[in-house]
Amino acid sequence: MSRVADPEELVTALAAIVGDRWTRSPSELEQHGRGETHLAPAPPDVVVYPVSTDEVSAVVRACAQRSVPVVPYGAGSSLEGHVSAVYGGVSLDMSRMDRVLRTNVADLDVTVEAGVTRKQLVRALGSTGATFFVDPGADATIGGMLATGASGTTSVRYGTMRENTLGLTVVLADGSVIRTGGRARKSSAGYDLTRLFIGSEGTLGVITEATLRLHPVPDAIAAAACSFPSVDAAVDAVVALLQSGVPLARIELLDDVTIASLNAYLGYPEVPMVFLELHAFSRDALGEQMGAVHEVVAEHGGRVHASATTEDERARLWDARHRVYYAGIARRPGARSWTTDVCVPVSALAQCIRETRADVAATGIEAPLVGHVGDGNFHLLLLIDPADPAERERAQGISVRLTERALAAGGTCTGEHGIGLGKMSSLAKEHGDSLPVMRAIKDALDPRHILNPGKIM
Amino acid sequence: MSRVADPEELVTALAAIVGDRWTRSPSELEQHGRGETHLAPAPPDVVVYPVSTDEVSAVVRACAQRSVPVVPYGAGSSLEGHVSAVYGGVSLDMSRMDRVLRTNVADLDVTVEAGVTRKQLVRALGSTGATFFVDPGADATIGGMLATGASGTTSVRYGTMRENTLGLTVVLADGSVIRTGGRARKSSAGYDLTRLFIGSEGTLGVITEATLRLHPVPDAIAAAACSFPSVDAAVDAVVALLQSGVPLARIELLDDVTIASLNAYLGYPEVPMVFLELHAFSRDALGEQMGAVHEVVAEHGGRVHASATTEDERARLWDARHRVYYAGIARRPGARSWTTDVCVPVSALAQCIRETRADVAATGIEAPLVGHVGDGNFHLLLLIDPADPAERERAQGISVRLTERALAAGGTCTGEHGIGLGKMSSLAKEHGDSLPVMRAIKDALDPRHILNPGKIM
Repeated sequence: MSRVADPEELVTALAAIVGDRWTRSPSELEQHGRGETHLAPAPPDVVVYPVSTDEVSAVVRACAQRSVPVVPYGAGSSLEGHVSAVYGGVSLDMSRMDRVLRTNVADLDVTVEAGVTRKQLVRALGSTGATFFVDPGADATIGGMLATGASGTTSVRYGTMRENTLGLTVVLADGSVIRTGGRARKSSAGYDLTRLFIGSEGTLGVITEATLRLHPVPDAIAAAACSFPSVDAAVDAVVALLQSGVPLARIELLDDVTIASLNAYLGYPEVPMVFLELHAFSRDALGEQMGAVHEVVAEHGGRVHASATTEDERARLWDARHRVYYAGIARRPGARSWTTDVCVPVSALAQCIRETRADVAATGIEAPLVGHVGDGNFHLLLLIDPADPAERERAQGISVRLTERALAAGGTCTGEHGIGLGKMSSLAKEHGDSLPVMRAIKDALDPRHILNPGKIM
Repeated sequence: MSRVADPEELVTALAAIVGDRWTRSPSELEQHGRGETHLAPAPPDVVVYPVSTDEVSAVVRACAQRSVPVVPYGAGSSLEGHVSAVYGGVSLDMSRMDRVLRTNVADLDVTVEAGVTRKQLVRALGSTGATFFVDPGADATIGGMLATGASGTTSVRYGTMRENTLGLTVVLADGSVIRTGGRARKSSAGYDLTRLFIGSEGTLGVITEATLRLHPVPDAIAAAACSFPSVDAAVDAVVALLQSGVPLARIELLDDVTIASLNAYLGYPEVPMVFLELHAFSRDALGEQMGAVHEVVAEHGGRVHASATTEDERARLWDARHRVYYAGIARRPGARSWTTDVCVPVSALAQCIRETRADVAATGIEAPLVGHVGDGNFHLLLLIDPADPAERERAQGISVRLTERALAAGGTCTGEHGIGLGKMSSLAKEHGDSLPVMRAIKDALDPRHILNPGKIM
């Protein structure tokens, strides 16, 4: 894989496909090579904005003929350098493929183009009675969420992108187009290519369309914010709630630093909190479940600080949760967040969080903690000055020790953010025995390594 | 791929690995090359019974050195000729790898060897409060269920093997061993090899161990058998129940022929029936859901014939459901079942079943119908004399037309039985555009095609 030999010739070829929907503006190149990562950006040579699978196919074919890298770009919310054009080439900005192509409420499925964002999809489903539940916080594109195998606040109940995708349209490295899966709820027809492309981070093909599973909007919903005397008590309560059989739809941990950074939005006391949501078949069933929640929370020295039953109240609570990332970064002007993402068996969660917080405290780095704790997944926002090598080194140390801790507990270095550039050495530690298999698949599907080169392995 | 050149030399090499745990007894060879398929059996040259991943690794390595086929064998319940040794070679009988290696109720996960059967696992979990929910009917091995991407009666609520597997130990074509996934509830660490091996039917690697998701045993459970005046009315009621938001844990359709064949066990009137089960957080919630079921059933002219709330009553109901296959075959002495397996979007289910029943009626073949209708998946047991070419041809015609009908509706030729030998032409129709990708992966992971050769593609 080499840099683009003749950018002018490449742009001429691309313009023949996409007309004037391309740019070499330095600010656009810079933005497309960055994302939300703590890593240094690497701009592409050109950004193109395709509007159809056919255009993506033609662009990839043009790049294949020239051995030019193709780096898919969604909303730029990647945290691990996925959009970084480390070998230059073409950034394939999917944001103009933003049509909801087909909705079927009776079958609870929808087909969308890859550039549709999560919030756009939920809005489009409006009052149909069906909704899409995967919610990573960021208003990522569906294509980006598929590429990283995203999950989020509702995955404890409704699963990740893997469980909520029925089929894909994918442009392969030679520009050919395939359709994986279909509209059946399940299938055993050949290799599970749908799941192979999900989480492949643009290295095996470019996802242009997806058929997704929807879920009925529950008849009765309530959310609650629960405060606890300590992070330990909060985590213990979460584990007890999971084991109680209460069917939790969301359960999120926010430590005192995170709550403090949200004070402009919420005004809660600055103590560790758990935000949760229940979905039930009726108001009676909901009341019964909320009663069980109150009991478990009280047993762990906490209290249900606020119960949100109206849609507005719930929206305010989850909106605050989704502001954690930017509110956290705003605590330190000029800082970027080195965001961690381990996921461990729930029984190991309390100890993993306890040891990690002690480790962070010893380094003096401020690090709001937030987590999809129902899945055993939590994030630290390590707030560092990206230009300070000493701070980077301390963050690196925390991250390495955290990954070791997670792997020792049977967990993973990344629950949902993916490998990208940032976690390649962690992947080698976690799945070193499988890397030859991953490499063999990469070589088989993209022999010239033009698809998002330099990532994962 | 050629037949075994020197069987004596091969057996000597294998005996050095597994001692006396091998056989060339003609009856064992015959049984291991057959399964429950309507297709002609093809016996292997030798059957070996490994007891560890290391032994499987050594056996595969010995076969790789000699370019000898390796065909994994679980409980022999495959319906599509997966265990057929079409190029001879070694049948790898996994039944002696039957240990439950680790159970963790707090994390709701378990690690088992591939030869553990579904019923054995459920028994082993006993009164822990956790259970394993994937239930294809047959008492298949976990390895076999993984290899075909199995599902079953509870998949409408709890998912298939894909959603219930956290990680695998796999022996690759060169005998090397990898561990995919882990114990975290979710991970975005590299390509999703776990899901790639699930459903790969022994053609990419031999699964020797699996870490599976468990679910809490629900606090309140009730099952019901509902009778309907017609199959149409029953299917319409199923669709209405799915759309009502009642959280169904199982919902199965049995037509009048199927019910008739179960009369020895149940003694119901010979009309179409729907068996269903509800899992709830409390008896109150359960009562509320059952009330909604009664309403929908009545609206479709049906009645709740029997409500099974005790464990014994439920066990009797589902045991009868699981007898459908053998009870169906017993209707015609000497017959085998050509078993179909399409899965369609639920909105297309009623029409697909109606047209299919009319098609079957026109051929004069008796065919009990049963289905995991909550997923849009149903089976016909086409009862044929396997030695009668005219009957085979009629069954083939029904099967081809049924697949075309399912694909036209956006469905799949196989919801859960897999491709094996029996559905290769259907796979080409359904995913012809993806076959080059599947072949590239096969070539990359098993360049000499020693792993279950001749299957899928």
